Amino acid sequence: MDRRRFMRTGALGGVAAAGLAAPALAQTAPRIRWRCASAFPPVFDALHGGALDLARFLREATDGAFEIEIVPPGGLGPVSGLADAAIGGAVEMTHTASHYYIDKDPAYALGAALPFAMNARALEAWLLAGGGIDLLNGFFEGQGLRYLPGGNTGAQMGGWFRREINAVQDLKGLKIRAVGLAGEVMKRLGAVPQPLPVEAIAPALERGELDAAEWVGPYDDEKAGFAKLAPFYYYPGWWEGSLSLSFLVNKDAHDRLPPTYRSLLAMAARAVTIEMQGKYDFRNPAALARLVAGGAQLRPFPQDMLNAAFDAANKLYGEIAGRNPAFKTIHDSMMAFRAETYRYQQVPEYTFDTFMMIKQREGALGGA
Amino acid sequence: MDRRRFMRTGALGGVAAAGLAAPALAQTAPRIRWRCASAFPPVFDALHGGALDLARFLREATDGAFEIEIVPPGGLGPVSGLADAAIGGAVEMTHTASHYYIDKDPAYALGAALPFAMNARALEAWLLAGGGIDLLNGFFEGQGLRYLPGGNTGAQMGGWFRREINAVQDLKGLKIRAVGLAGEVMKRLGAVPQPLPVEAIAPALERGELDAAEWVGPYDDEKAGFAKLAPFYYYPGWWEGSLSLSFLVNKDAHDRLPPTYRSLLAMAARAVTIEMQGKYDFRNPAALARLVAGGAQLRPFPQDMLNAAFDAANKLYGEIAGRNPAFKTIHDSMMAFRAETYRYQQVPEYTFDTFMMIKQREGALGGA
Repeated sequence: MDRRRFMRTGALGGVAAAGLAAPALAQTAPRIRWRCASAFPPVFDALHGGALDLARFLREATDGAFEIEIVPPGGLGPVSGLADAAIGGAVEMTHTASHYYIDKDPAYALGAALPFAMNARALEAWLLAGGGIDLLNGFFEGQGLRYLPGGNTGAQMGGWFRREINAVQDLKGLKIRAVGLAGEVMKRLGAVPQPLPVEAIAPALERGELDAAEWVGPYDDEKAGFAKLAPFYYYPGWWEGSLSLSFLVNKDAHDRLPPTYRSLLAMAARAVTIEMQGKYDFRNPAALARLVAGGAQLRPFPQDMLNAAFDAANKLYGEIAGRNPAFKTIHDSMMAFRAETYRYQQVPEYTFDTFMMIKQREGALGGA
Repeated sequence: MDRRRFMRTGALGGVAAAGLAAPALAQTAPRIRWRCASAFPPVFDALHGGALDLARFLREATDGAFEIEIVPPGGLGPVSGLADAAIGGAVEMTHTASHYYIDKDPAYALGAALPFAMNARALEAWLLAGGGIDLLNGFFEGQGLRYLPGGNTGAQMGGWFRREINAVQDLKGLKIRAVGLAGEVMKRLGAVPQPLPVEAIAPALERGELDAAEWVGPYDDEKAGFAKLAPFYYYPGWWEGSLSLSFLVNKDAHDRLPPTYRSLLAMAARAVTIEMQGKYDFRNPAALARLVAGGAQLRPFPQDMLNAAFDAANKLYGEIAGRNPAFKTIHDSMMAFRAETYRYQQVPEYTFDTFMMIKQREGALGGA
């Protein structure tokens, strides 16, 4: 190397090769700054925490190189527009419940919850081990999105009613807050569904513009303050035997991520799912106890209403599948596993849990 | 800067600050090579896959900087010695079921499974959101280990019996493969428990040295080939309403990891949990159907046996807690949540699942 060239480049080449961090490693941690629009107000900390936890996982794992700023709802207009915000690139991603967007295509519901689908363990099994994520991405990528499940609420409650529901005909004319395909099923049972955002529910109940409202479950519903407005608290939430929240990521932004970050994102979303499920499962029991102590009247939905809703849901799925091949492909796979899992769960899972519930009722588990 | 100094250091300082990867980022990806001893033979791919998945997640997220080599069972002597191998530093970590090591201290059982504890959702909720991991580490750190839950099997089956069990007295003298505190409960019911490693089970059944054996559930049991040797397949596995697998990490090795890698490890272990649970939940239904088609005789355990085992387990816990404060602290917390969760689960979860199971039995879910 002549002196001139050495003066120009220094000893850099040699030193870097011998002692400095290898470029390959350095290149795995490029600085990325994304924004994620959450569909869930911060007061609902388990839901909103899904995006916060994802951001924290990525920040810690990359020492701050991959940062995601969480935009709370309202920051990008109504929650009903967040899928389009991610598709259009106003944000790189949104954390939401994809059934909020069934007006774009009913297949959006399949990434979140369907009436009479599956409990959380079964839904996650289908998503992660049963090819569900890939099937869903066959649809979502056509929308310009990458679908990453992130969070689950478990089985939801059936919501708050101002008066008792003793049979399916009591739904006639009932103005109820409902979202996703549950709204259409409700309509077919005679109710008047209204897909209100959460902040509009309590005011509508107060003004008498709603007769009933479902949101999530005890931990969230307690904060929303529905108990004083509509005291009959029904179960189960047959439209959300579990609800998969998801990160809907702009497809181009996802494709441009280095492979290490794509892997990190997928792993972090899985961690979000188990963390959120854990928060709900740990906190719901005490919240329900407080709600009941405060006057909430627990009621099971009448059996004839469940049966009518089940039949209406199946009819609806058949109609949608008949005109929407993407919906049919994904739905067929989900339903095939639903039959298998609900046969299997009757054996070790249900019998173990039933025994433990009997012991709880006998007082043999103590406490609570 | 004079020419002499410039000649010595080159333009390195300036160039690095302006254009090269910042040292802080490079330092976040030091090369780490660990070994993890798996307690589970590769043929049991869901269990063995826990360690493989962890290694894959870390490799992908660090572009190969953090590599974990998986040592299959046998590579470090018997599975019963793997906790000590991690404590002594022969390997940095083991992926195992911590109740294999109750001879060291019965509190090891609390990191895996206890008879009549909780289903998988509830156990994970207690671990992740209920302070369980921290409580367990209060014990495990005293052992020189860091406990990271990683994987769950869900509710296990009650295992394979050469003859029918119609009442608790049929357990008298029964030689049964059992591990953890379940062995002691079995003994108190009159059985003769034997904590055999999995590869020893089928030969012992063939030679008549065992009358019964439990391993995991349909997906794994099918591979182990027990159906031909002991055709009565009982449920539920009351000693493992769920089983948390775990990574037991040498504490000093864990403490020496950079913070980014500690975060990655914790996140990856959570991802392992949901992945493994998904694999079992997705594959067990078809495996059970094949086993039954092949001649396995499904039987529920008799109620009086479940009741006697429940009482014996409670008595055992009281005795251990009376002499072992670490066990008592963790166990009290777990049992307080057990009472809460089994009251709560009766409301939305159980009623939704029961309705779906009724529909399955009516044939209304189709398939299967």
